[in-house]
Order: sequence, then structure tokens, then C-alpha cells
Amino acid sequence: MNNTTSKKKKMLLALDGQQTDTPPLWLMRQAGRHLKEYMEIRAKAENFLNFCYSPDLAVEATLQPIRRYGFDAAILFSDILVIPDALGQQVDFVPGTGPKLAAISSIEELEKLSKDRLHDHLSPVYEAIGRIRHELSELAEETTLIGFAGAPWTVATYVVEGGGSKDYQKTRKWAYGAPDEFSALIDILVDATADYLIRQIDSGVEAVQLFDSWAGVLPPSQFDKWTIEPAKKIIARIRAHHPDTPIIGFPRGAGLLYRRFVEETGVNAVSIDATVPLAWAAENLQSHCAVQGNLDNLALLTGGPAMEAEIAHILAAFADGPFIFNLGHGILPETPVPHVERLVELVRGTSVGAA
Amino acid sequence: MNNTTSKKKKMLLALDGQQTDTPPLWLMRQAGRHLKEYMEIRAKAENFLNFCYSPDLAVEATLQPIRRYGFDAAILFSDILVIPDALGQQVDFVPGTGPKLAAISSIEELEKLSKDRLHDHLSPVYEAIGRIRHELSELAEETTLIGFAGAPWTVATYVVEGGGSKDYQKTRKWAYGAPDEFSALIDILVDATADYLIRQIDSGVEAVQLFDSWAGVLPPSQFDKWTIEPAKKIIARIRAHHPDTPIIGFPRGAGLLYRRFVEETGVNAVSIDATVPLAWAAENLQSHCAVQGNLDNLALLTGGPAMEAEIAHILAAFADGPFIFNLGHGILPETPVPHVERLVELVRGTSVGAA
Repeated sequence: MNNTTSKKKKMLLALDGQQTDTPPLWLMRQAGRHLKEYMEIRAKAENFLNFCYSPDLAVEATLQPIRRYGFDAAILFSDILVIPDALGQQVDFVPGTGPKLAAISSIEELEKLSKDRLHDHLSPVYEAIGRIRHELSELAEETTLIGFAGAPWTVATYVVEGGGSKDYQKTRKWAYGAPDEFSALIDILVDATADYLIRQIDSGVEAVQLFDSWAGVLPPSQFDKWTIEPAKKIIARIRAHHPDTPIIGFPRGAGLLYRRFVEETGVNAVSIDATVPLAWAAENLQSHCAVQGNLDNLALLTGGPAMEAEIAHILAAFADGPFIFNLGHGILPETPVPHVERLVELVRGTSVGAA
Repeated sequence: MNNTTSKKKKMLLALDGQQTDTPPLWLMRQAGRHLKEYMEIRAKAENFLNFCYSPDLAVEATLQPIRRYGFDAAILFSDILVIPDALGQQVDFVPGTGPKLAAISSIEELEKLSKDRLHDHLSPVYEAIGRIRHELSELAEETTLIGFAGAPWTVATYVVEGGGSKDYQKTRKWAYGAPDEFSALIDILVDATADYLIRQIDSGVEAVQLFDSWAGVLPPSQFDKWTIEPAKKIIARIRAHHPDTPIIGFPRGAGLLYRRFVEETGVNAVSIDATVPLAWAAENLQSHCAVQGNLDNLALLTGGPAMEAEIAHILAAFADGPFIFNLGHGILPETPVPHVERLVELVRGTSVGAA
């Protein structure tokens, strides 16, 4: 599993705080529905969680965008809801509707969650990681493998609401009204998430990203409690085992609070969404850590002059510090492949595959 | 319609940039479903738009929260979708689902929109405004009447998507891919919205608020084009007719871009959502104009110590400048009335109705 080349990978250089000639490039949700080769293998598993837990399929889905685009990072193909599933909560993915969980909304119901079978349950993920690293060493040895997990706040919204939600009313009411009870849920998720990410690194991922997709709804007092504090605990746990593995935080939609997140958590990189002004991020975030982002996924979907202008602005804004080119949010399924190919050309200043 | 008392109303003092002993207080969506007296009159109209266009019902709904809580401002009971409806687009409110419009998504289809019957169509709104002012002069002469409209970007998302939406994909793709075409739609909405707000003021409202509820999804380049520029045009039109009527802007979710919005548009007040850090807003926004906000509607729904702590923080943060106490987003239908009563006590430093 060790990187035996003397030259450090471009993605890891950026995560180490170094400038690179052109930025490393990958896209959130690069593996998945915008690729026809993904749709072909997706049909091989009866449901989405089984797909995630099938090492053959997860390995293949992870590698597909690397083969097609030659990105600088591969990200493990999985889902943030494997954690509640592995803790014993009933999780289903209903086609066309999204995830459906047996909602947990009282302190008593937290007893339904148990870490006893966590690693057994997640062993197909760890197996997939080992196999992806092996495949990458032959296919694209410059490509960094990223592991990930959902952050406790975001996962908690699914645990409590029983699925996706518009305003997270049950979760947020619980968090305001009974913070000690809600803390108990967050602590369970912190513990399981730290264990999970440590084991991902043991298995071969070279960096990890913590996705707090719904952090943006939290007012500052709640953001401190439910986004920053859990991230700090998870990061401390990871670093006690793997001090050199870089950690990317993504408190999506944090706005003005991105800076506090970076300063308080000490992440190696922060992923920013497309609403963050570039000059502000360069001044306030890139001075602390690597910045990853932040092309609007709708600009990529649209393509053309608007996309090209946005890419040029982003490249110029972050040219003087550690930077990883990415989207501000996951690639949309309707995104045409030629738009992604053009993005690769523009970011690399070259044609596809020649970098 | 003139305010014949020599003392200026508290709400108008704050909008004029003056500090008040305790801040004026009102709540977005104060008229509506959290009140049982609203649910009783709501049943009298077969559909929601008919309710909005019935002066008797709109007057009563507007006044209900004033009678119950004695707020410093009443806001016209209406909906932002009266503008596409008045322009000739088919708009229905489907119970339990939300608004449904005959979507418009091409430059040719814009011809379906016409301003010819705008004021005829909206005359029940203007009639309601006159009657509310009259009623308020007897019921609560210190209460300011606020008119409102949806901002063009937010209204455009409904026009183009044909209803509510998760990521506004059609609208945002049109805006990126064919900005000249999308501008034509925005210009139609700017023109109609300016006419509508001017006529609201002619009819008796004493201030207006422009609700850009979905501004928060726009990256900076798009925010400038579709939120700031239309707001500037509408404000210029209003001020040409009514230079002294204060204008409140609410680009919800604008994060770091609230400051640019305030500086560029020259609004008299900015309404901020609950994610905006208080100290930042006091320093960067309240120095330019009055600030309105920003209690989390989930904190109000929850009540108790968390709500009380948030209220205290807000009152302290904005005590040294012009400030209007409000929520960060509309009151939720499930909000208990006693929580609102407690909020009134805390903001006024007194008991309900004694202010």
C-alpha cells in the first residue's frame, strides 16, 4: 500500500499546503449517474446499499471516472448512510424517492444503535479500498485515493427525519430543545465515524473527506455545537492513529462560518461551495489551509462560455496557494461528458489524458 | 392615509436609521397558519389565491396577529406569486403540495406574459391595503403597514420550474446558458414588480420588503446579475415616485454577499437569515443601514432556554444601531402561540400587550 515512488502525488502535495503547477482535479460524485458505464453496472445490484457493499461493483464504480478523465483523485464509491445502516438502523433506498430510514427521535431509541457489528458490516468497504489501491497502482499511480464519511450533523438529520428533509424540523427541534439527548446521538455518530475513517485509512485511503452537506442551515451557536465540535473530535481521533493523513472538511453552505470552521478544526483542506466569493476565500481560507472547490455544478451542466468564464476566475483566484479544483457540490446526473472533458482541458491547460 | 400624529412610528424610526429604546418587532409570516383564527377564515375561500384576492379576508388575516400580539408592523397578507398570476401565467395552489404554474422556459413563451391587466388583476390587493390602513388607524395607530413583493430571481424560479424546486436546475441552466433570454424574463418581472410596489405605496403601505427567498443558491457572479441588479432597478423606480418610503431587502441565504447587496442597492434595511453571525452583521451591515432579523424560526418553534438565549444574543448584538427584531425566515405553522408571546415579552422587556 505504500507509495513507493519518490515523487509525491499532486493531490497530496496540495493537501500538504504546497502550490502545484496546475491544481489537482477531481469532482464530487465523479463516480455515478452522469456516466453511462456506471448506469450499466448499477443495474447489477438489486438495491443501492447492496451495490455499495459489493466490492466488485464499488471498485469498478470508483475507477470508472479515473479511466475516463484521468482525475488526480479517486473517491471511494459509497454512501454516507452506511454508518446508520452499520449501527443497526433500518436504511432503504427507494428508487426515485431517496433514502428511507426507520426514524429515531428519542433518547430511548438510541439504544437501537450499536457499534458491535460496525466493522463486520463495513468490511466490504474496507475490502474495496484495498483492491482500489492495488488497481490504481497499475492503472494510474499518480492518482490519490480519498475515503469519506458523512459528518455527524448531516447523518443525524437522516437518522432523525427518517430520510431527506426540507427544513430538518424534527432534528433541529431536538437539538434546540434537548441538547443533552441530541448530543448522545451525535457522540454515537462521532465515535462510529472516527472508527470508520481510521479503518478506511488502515485499508489504504490516502486522505479523507468529511461531508457536512447540511451544515448550512445551522445558525452560529448551533454550527459550533453540531458541526465544529464533532469535526474536532473526529479529527483528533484520526490524527492519534494517522497523524500524516490529510483531512478535508466540507461544511457545505457555511458562508461566513467557513473561516471559523477552518481555524477551529485545523483541517488540512476545506472544500467550499459555489456561493463563496473567490477573493474572500483566497484571503481568509487559503491562508490557513488548502482550498478545494468551487465551480457551480449548474455551470458545469450548462457548459459553454459561462462555464469557461467561471473556471478561469477560479483558477486565477486560487493560483497563489494550495488549491484543488473541484465543484461546489456533487456533479449532477444530467451533466454531459463533453463538458467534463472541456473542464479537464481548461484546468490542466492541455487536452484530455495528456496531463 | 397620512400619519397625522406628530410622533413617528417606531418601525419607521428604525427604518430611518435611528436607534429606538426597544426594537420594533414583527415576524415574517406572522399572519397565517400558526394562528387558529387564521385557519378559521382560511376555510372561507376555496383556494389560496382567491383568499389573497378577497379584500375582506386579506384585511382580516393581516390584522389578526396585530390584535393578538400588538406587533409594530403589519404585513399585507398576500403571496409572491400574484405577480406571475397577474401577468397571465396559470398559477394554482395545490393543497398539501404547493404552487403549480404552467412553466415558461423559452423566449417565445415569454409572450404569454403581459402587463396589460396587471393593476386590474391586483386591484383587490390595493383595496385591501387602503382598508387595512383605515382599520389600523383605529386599532393600533402605532403599527406600520408593510407591503411586499417577491424579488425577480425568486419569482423567476417558480415561473420557470413551474413550482417549488430543490435545485432550480431549469432556471439556473437558462440563466447560465442564455443570459440574454433570461434577462428578458427578469426585466418583465422587474417592471411588473416595480409597478406593483409603487401602487402598493400609492394605496397606503408605509414601507416595502423585497423577498429574494432563493438568492442563497446563486454564486457571486450570478448573484450580481439576478439579485443585485434587479433590486437596484426596482428601488430606483420606487424612489422616483416615492423617495421617502423605506425599502427592506431580503436576499435570504446571501452569506458573505449580504454586504455587497447592502452597499450596491442602497436599501434602507436588510433582513438577514439566522445563519448570519451577529457580530459580523453589526459591524458590516448595521453600519450601512437598519438590520432586521434574525431569530432562527426553529428556535421559536422549540421555545425554552435555547430560544431565550438566542433572543438575548440578538438583542445585545444589535443594541447600538438601527434594528428591527424579526425571524431569519417565516414563522413555522407548528409554532406554539405561547412561544411568540414570550418572544414579545423578551423583546419589549415587558408583558404582552403592555408596550
